Amino acid sequence: MTTLHDRAVRGFASDNYSGIHPEVLAAIEAANGGHQVAYGEDDYTARLQEVFAAHLGDGVEAFPVFNGTGANVTGLQSMLPRWGAVVSASTAHINVDEGGAPERVGGIKILHVPTDDGKLTPELIDREAWGWGDEHRAQPLVVSITQSTELGTLYTPDEIRAIADHVHARGMRLHLDGARAANAAASLDLPLRAFTRDAGVDVMSFGGTKNGAMLGEAIVVLDPAASDGLIYLRKLNMQLASKMRFVSAQLIALLEGDLWLRNARHANAMAQRLRAGVEAGLADGSIRGVGFTQPTQANGVFATLPDGVADRLRAAFRFYDWDASRNEVRWMCSFDTSEADIDAFIEAITREAG
Amino acid sequence: MTTLHDRAVRGFASDNYSGIHPEVLAAIEAANGGHQVAYGEDDYTARLQEVFAAHLGDGVEAFPVFNGTGANVTGLQSMLPRWGAVVSASTAHINVDEGGAPERVGGIKILHVPTDDGKLTPELIDREAWGWGDEHRAQPLVVSITQSTELGTLYTPDEIRAIADHVHARGMRLHLDGARAANAAASLDLPLRAFTRDAGVDVMSFGGTKNGAMLGEAIVVLDPAASDGLIYLRKLNMQLASKMRFVSAQLIALLEGDLWLRNARHANAMAQRLRAGVEAGLADGSIRGVGFTQPTQANGVFATLPDGVADRLRAAFRFYDWDASRNEVRWMCSFDTSEADIDAFIEAITREAG
Amino acid sequence: MTTLHDRAVRGFASDNYSGIHPEVLAAIEAANGGHQVAYGEDDYTARLQEVFAAHLGDGVEAFPVFNGTGANVTGLQSMLPRWGAVVSASTAHINVDEGGAPERVGGIKILHVPTDDGKLTPELIDREAWGWGDEHRAQPLVVSITQSTELGTLYTPDEIRAIADHVHARGMRLHLDGARAANAAASLDLPLRAFTRDAGVDVMSFGGTKNGAMLGEAIVVLDPAASDGLIYLRKLNMQLASKMRFVSAQLIALLEGDLWLRNARHANAMAQRLRAGVEAGLADGSIRGVGFTQPTQANGVFATLPDGVADRLRAAFRFYDWDASRNEVRWMCSFDTSEADIDAFIEAITREAG
Amino acid sequence: MTTLHDRAVRGFASDNYSGIHPEVLAAIEAANGGHQVAYGEDDYTARLQEVFAAHLGDGVEAFPVFNGTGANVTGLQSMLPRWGAVVSASTAHINVDEGGAPERVGGIKILHVPTDDGKLTPELIDREAWGWGDEHRAQPLVVSITQSTELGTLYTPDEIRAIADHVHARGMRLHLDGARAANAAASLDLPLRAFTRDAGVDVMSFGGTKNGAMLGEAIVVLDPAASDGLIYLRKLNMQLASKMRFVSAQLIALLEGDLWLRNARHANAMAQRLRAGVEAGLADGSIRGVGFTQPTQANGVFATLPDGVADRLRAAFRFYDWDASRNEVRWMCSFDTSEADIDAFIEAITREAG
Repeated sequence: MTTLHDRAVRGFASDNYSGIHPEVLAAIEAANGGHQVAYGEDDYTARLQEVFAAHLGDGVEAFPVFNGTGANVTGLQSMLPRWGAVVSASTAHINVDEGGAPERVGGIKILHVPTDDGKLTPELIDREAWGWGDEHRAQPLVVSITQSTELGTLYTPDEIRAIADHVHARGMRLHLDGARAANAAASLDLPLRAFTRDAGVDVMSFGGTKNGAMLGEAIVVLDPAASDGLIYLRKLNMQLASKMRFVSAQLIALLEGDLWLRNARHANAMAQRLRAGVEAGLADGSIRGVGFTQPTQANGVFATLPDGVADRLRAAFRFYDWDASRNEVRWMCSFDTSEADIDAFIEAITREAG
Repeated sequence: MTTLHDRAVRGFASDNYSGIHPEVLAAIEAANGGHQVAYGEDDYTARLQEVFAAHLGDGVEAFPVFNGTGANVTGLQSMLPRWGAVVSASTAHINVDEGGAPERVGGIKILHVPTDDGKLTPELIDREAWGWGDEHRAQPLVVSITQSTELGTLYTPDEIRAIADHVHARGMRLHLDGARAANAAASLDLPLRAFTRDAGVDVMSFGGTKNGAMLGEAIVVLDPAASDGLIYLRKLNMQLASKMRFVSAQLIALLEGDLWLRNARHANAMAQRLRAGVEAGLADGSIRGVGFTQPTQANGVFATLPDGVADRLRAAFRFYDWDASRNEVRWMCSFDTSEADIDAFIEAITREAG
Repeated sequence: MTTLHDRAVRGFASDNYSGIHPEVLAAIEAANGGHQVAYGEDDYTARLQEVFAAHLGDGVEAFPVFNGTGANVTGLQSMLPRWGAVVSASTAHINVDEGGAPERVGGIKILHVPTDDGKLTPELIDREAWGWGDEHRAQPLVVSITQSTELGTLYTPDEIRAIADHVHARGMRLHLDGARAANAAASLDLPLRAFTRDAGVDVMSFGGTKNGAMLGEAIVVLDPAASDGLIYLRKLNMQLASKMRFVSAQLIALLEGDLWLRNARHANAMAQRLRAGVEAGLADGSIRGVGFTQPTQANGVFATLPDGVADRLRAAFRFYDWDASRNEVRWMCSFDTSEADIDAFIEAITREAG
Repeated sequence: MTTLHDRAVRGFASDNYSGIHPEVLAAIEAANGGHQVAYGEDDYTARLQEVFAAHLGDGVEAFPVFNGTGANVTGLQSMLPRWGAVVSASTAHINVDEGGAPERVGGIKILHVPTDDGKLTPELIDREAWGWGDEHRAQPLVVSITQSTELGTLYTPDEIRAIADHVHARGMRLHLDGARAANAAASLDLPLRAFTRDAGVDVMSFGGTKNGAMLGEAIVVLDPAASDGLIYLRKLNMQLASKMRFVSAQLIALLEGDLWLRNARHANAMAQRLRAGVEAGLADGSIRGVGFTQPTQANGVFATLPDGVADRLRAAFRFYDWDASRNEVRWMCSFDTSEADIDAFIEAITREAG
C-alpha cells in the first residue's frame, strides 16, 4: 500500500487528525514478531501495569481499550449498579459526543449541569446530586469530570480534591475523563497523580490517541473498591483487543519515558503561540474583531470570529465551529503542529480579520 | 520501548497470538504523517471501499471496526429490529465466545442449533426458524453462518447458496461471520465473492486480525437493503476509530494485492502439514492414539489425544483444549507458522504419543 | 381479605393515591367469568379499538399496557431507531421520574430543555433539535410533550399544532405523554382529538390510572407510519398483560361514556376550588405569604409557602414538596377529592399561614 | 360497560384464559376507597410481607410486580452482575416465551440445556455451568428452575435441594420461576417453603395470575444476600404499580387463607380427571391413538393425538399445539375448569379419536 494523502497538510480541526508519533510506531514494531498470549496476558500489558504504577502508585490497575468512548462507558459502568446515574458538565464528551453510548450500551442516565467553562464545582454538582433512595430517580452515584476539559480549561488539583471530598462525603465516586490528561499534566507542570489519584479520583480514562498513539486508551482504576468487573465489562462492551500487546506497547511508548509530556507540552505550547499571536495582532490592530471565549490552558483555543472569517480561513486550514450561533470556533493543536503551522495560521487570520 | 518478549516463540493456541505481517506494518507507516479527517472521512477509508468493490462488486459498503465481536454484533444489529433474533450454530463465536455481547449490547436473542461440524443446513435452520408474528418469541429474522467455521470446516458456495435461498424465501437475511474468510477463500481456491455475495450473503464480517493485521475488521454490507444505520450503530457500539486511516490502511494492505491470500494459504498449508504429519505417524505406528474430530479444511486441526499427552506437549507448545471431557484439543496455524514449527511439533507429538 | 386502611383519609399527594372509580370496578366485574383469549385477542381489547376510534377517528390503534412509564418508553421506542433521541422539557416525566427507564430499557437519549412552565415551543425545541447525520450525536427524531404538563399547565391545540408542524418539517415525529390527557380535555373543553390527532400528534400515551382506573394505560398510534413493532416491543418491555381483558375493560369504562371527562372535570374543579379559596384568603388577608408558581389549568396547584407551613399542614394532609429550595409544594386533586376535602384544607392553610 | 363475552365458554388453552376468582375481586373492592400512598408504601403491601413471611419464614421480602416476565427478568437481574448468565432448561419460559426480554431488557445470556421433562439436574446444569473467570463466556452465576415446570412436571423437595447444594457449592445462586408454584404445593401436598426456601432457593417468582388473580406476581427474596437493588430494578423495568395496593390485595386474597391452594388443587384435580378419563377410554378401547408425553403432576396434560383430531376438537374447545411436528398438544386446566368441562371434553375426544 502506498501513501495516498498529502503528508504536508495539517490543520486545527482536532488532535485526532494527526497520526502516530514515530516513537509510538517504533514501539508497535518492537512488540511485533513471535507469538504472545492474546487478550491481555502478554508481556506488554504486564509491563504497562508497572508503567502506570510508576506514575500513579502501587495498586492501580490499567485496562487497555480501543477508544475514549469505550474507556469512559466501560469505566463508568464498572463504578455503577444498573440503576446508577452520572453527574457531569453539560459539555462533557460523555454527554454530547458519544452518540448515546453511555445511555444505550451503558444503561447510564447522565444528569448534566450547565457550566461556563466546562468545569464542575461542588455547588454545581449539588444541582443534580440528590434523590438517593428514591427509585423514581436514576441514582446519582458517580460524578465525572474531564481534565483538561472539552473547553480547553483545567482544574487545579485543589479544585479536584474539593470535588472528590464533596462527592465521597455523599457516598458517590469520582471519575475523570482523561482523554487529554497529558495536556493537563503538561500545563499544570505536575505529575499525573497530583490531579488524579492524589486528588481523590477513583477511576480515570487515560487517552493515548490524542497524545500521539495510533489508537489506545486505558481505564485506570485508582481505587479498586470503586470498580467491579472490568475484565468482563471490557469484553462485553467489545473493547477487548485480541492482539492487546500492540495497544499496550503504544501506551508504554508514551508513558515509560517522557514522550507523553513532550507531546502534550508541544501541543499546549502551540496553542499558546496561536493565542499569543492573535492577541498581539489584536493589540497592535493588525487583527480586529476576534475574541476568546475560554482561557487557553491546554491545547485548544476557543475564539469568536467576525462574520465570514471562519469560512475564508477554512480554505486553507481545517477547523470546526463550536457554537455557530455566536461564530465561535475551536482550534486544536496537536503533537505534530509546527511553529510554522501556527505562524501561517496567524498570518491568515491577520489577512482575513485584519 | 524495547522488545520485551522472545520473538522466537510461536505456538498453536490461536491465530491471534501472532503479530503484524511486515507489509501491514509498512502500510500503517505509509498512512502516517500529516493530518487526515478523523472518523472515516480519510483517503484510506475511501480507498478501502474501492478495494472491497474489486473483490465483491459494485455497491458494497465497508465499515471498518476494531474487532470481530464489534463487527458481528454491530452488523447483526443493523439487520434486525429490536425484537429480532439470530439463528446460528451452537458453536458459533457469537454464541459462545463473545461474553454475551450480542445479547447485552445488541439486545439480540441467539437461537442456536447443535451441529456436528459447525455448519448449518436448511434443515437445521428450520429447527429454530419459526414463530414469526408471535410476540412471545424473539423473531428469527437473520441466520448467521461462519466461514471458515469455528471447527475449521468449510461451506461450499452451493451450500451457502442453498442456505441463502432458504433463508430469503422465509423473509430472513443471511449474515456471514468471516473472521477467517480469507482462509476459506484460500482453501476453496475461489474469489471472496463466490461464497459471499454471489452465494446470497447479505452482510458479512471480514476479519483482518487473524489474517495478519494488528487489529481491524470490516462490516461489509453486500445488499444495502439488508442493513440500516451502520454509521450510527458503529459509533453507538463504541467501534468508531478516530484515526480510522490506520485501520483502513491495514485492510488495504491485506486486500489490495494478494497478501490476504498468501497469509491464509500459508496458514492453511501449515495445518495440512501438521495433519498429514500426524496421520503419517499414525499410519507407520510412530504415533498412537491420536484421532481427528473434524476435517482440516482451513487453518485449524481438531484432535483427540491420549490421556496426559496434551499437558506434556504444552511444556513447549501452547494450545487450547476444545472439549476437555473427551481430550479434544485445537491446534491453530497462523500466517507466521513455519514449516520448522510444524515439524518440531510433530516430533513432539511422536515423542509424547508414540 | 378485609379492608386494612381508613377509607376516609384523602390527601393532595398525587392523583394515584386515589383508588378505583366504582364504574371502573364494575367494568372489571362485567368482564369477568368464562375464558377469553389471553394477551389481547379478547372481546374487550377489540371493543377498546372502537372506543378509541370514536374519540380519535378511524385508523388509530391502541395497545393497552400496565403503567405510564411502560406506555411512554414503549411508544417512544416504536417511533425511533436504536440511535434515536427524544427532545423533551427538562421537567418531563420521562426525564425526571422514570428511574432511567427510557435510557436503560429504551436505549433512548433524552435531550431536555429547561422551561418555565413545562411547555416546549418550536424555539425551545430547536435548542436540541440539530445534528442530524452526525453519528456523534444521538439523533433527535422525536419530540415528546406532556398534556396536561407535569406543572399543571396546558398547551392549546394551536400551540401543539405549531410544534407538530415544526417537528414534522424537520423529519421528526411528535409524541404526547397523556398520563393526564383527560384533565386537558376537560379543562380545554375540547374533544380528545382536538389537541392530539387533529393537532398533529403521531403517538400518544393515554392514562387511565390517574383518571380513576386501578391500573392501565394505552399507547395510541395516531399515525401508523410513525410507529413500528409495538406488538413485539410491548412484550419485550414486559408490558403485555395476559388477562388483558381487564385492562381494556377499565379503559372502556372510562372512555365509552363520559366517565373519563366527569372524573377529570371534577379533579380540575377541585384544584380550581382550592386555588380560588386560597386566593380569596390572600385577598382578604386571612392567608398570608402563600404564592402560586404556575397557572392552575388542570388538577394540580403549585404553591410556595412560608417557612414551616408545609410541615404543619402535613400533619393532616399528605402532599409533596416540588422544589424544596424555594418552599414550593404540589397539591394534586383527584376524581375522588371532595369539596369538603378542599374546604378543610383551605381552613388548615388559613390556620397555619394566617 | 357491559359484558361483551360469553361467560359460559371455557377451554383448555391456558390457565390465563380464565378470569378473576370472586374472592380476589372482593379483595380489590375491599382495598378500594380513600387514599393510600402510591408505589408500595400502602397498608396492603405491608400486610403482604406478613403473609409471605407466614408461608416462607421471617426475613423474606416480596416485591409485587405486574406479570411473570417482569418478575423473572427483574428477579434474575437482581441476582446477577451485568456479565452474568442464567442456566435453565431449554423449555424454560424465560428461554422460549418471553420474547427475548431476559436478553434485551435484562442483558442476560441464557445458557439452556435440553431435558426430557423440563427438569434440570446437577448433571444437566454442569453442561453449561463452567467457565467462571473466562471473560469470553457470559458468567453462569444463577440457575433458574420452574416449579411446576412448563411441561406440567414437578421437582421433589429433595431434587431441588440437590440442585441448590450443587449450585451453591459452585458459587452460583438458585432462582425458581413459580408462576405455578401453587400448583406444585397443591400436588406435593407440602407447604410452599418446603420446596423453595427450605430447599435452598434464593429468589423466586410467585405467580398470582394463573392462580386466580386479575394480574399480579411477586418477586420473593428468600435469601437477602442473593439479591440487590430490587426497589430500583422494579422501577427501571417498568414493573412498579402506582396503585400497588390492588396488586398486593390480590396476592393477599390468595395467600392469606387457603384460596391459593383451593384454586391450585382444583386445577390439578381437573387435569387428573382429564387424564384419567382419557386413559380409561384408551383402556376400554373407546379412545384410540392418544398418547401422553409427560406425567400429569400439576394442571397441564400433554398428549399426542391422531392426525386431524386436534383440529376437530378445537371446533368446541380451545387449546394449543405444543410440538406440532409430532401432533403434541397441551391441555391446561384452571381454577374455574368444571367437572362438566372435563367430561364434555373427554366425550369429544372419544367421539373424535374413538
